[in-house]
Amino acid sequence: MERKLVIAVRGDLKLSHGKLAAQVAHAAVSCALRSQKHDRRKFRDWFDEGQRKITVRVPDEAALHALQADARAAGLTTALVRDAGRTELVAGTVTCLGLGPAGEAELDSLTGELSLL
Amino acid sequence: MERKLVIAVRGDLKLSHGKLAAQVAHAAVSCALRSQKHDRRKFRDWFDEGQRKITVRVPDEAALHALQADARAAGLTTALVRDAGRTELVAGTVTCLGLGPAGEAELDSLTGELSLL
Repeated sequence: MERKLVIAVRGDLKLSHGKLAAQVAHAAVSCALRSQKHDRRKFRDWFDEGQRKITVRVPDEAALHALQADARAAGLTTALVRDAGRTELVAGTVTCLGLGPAGEAELDSLTGELSLL
Repeated sequence: MERKLVIAVRGDLKLSHGKLAAQVAHAAVSCALRSQKHDRRKFRDWFDEGQRKITVRVPDEAALHALQADARAAGLTTALVRDAGRTELVAGTVTCLGLGPAGEAELDSLTGELSLL
């Protein structure tokens, strides 16, 4: 079973490509480092398989928080990203959520219905 | 002096937002993990300062390779990303390059003239 890391992004924010990419990267780095510390086996498998990442869209901030709560309840690593507010956004704006790395089936039960970004 | 991680992206590829973000995230995770292993002090400082990331644009693949050569000569951590080719791109397509983390001045001497993504 292949591992992946899913990054869910708010679809209701207007972000430049570069800003969006930096936020997604922030979520991915945070999830990778957390899982390296707390779930080393999953981290190692995911990394060795090529560190697969999928980006999906959620409608708004409330959906991100709900997704994080469900993911935590399922025992997954999560990382909610708040922008530092230096450029396009008000400081503290929640932009995206990293989930995993974890097995495909485990993540699909939480994010499988969401559209790709 | 604040640290940052720069991700340079090819401007000549047509990528969806989500695909682009995943490629940038790949570069960021690779640079973070490499620097954690080989340049722990810089990694730690960068992470503790909020893991700042900047995305910039280069015209084409040749520019990415040239930038990587210059960065290596300057002793920086680099990570060149090749897409796995499962979706939008031909397998092995070089998409972006992560540089650092390193100090602002050190990176600006290499990438300061490039446009933000």
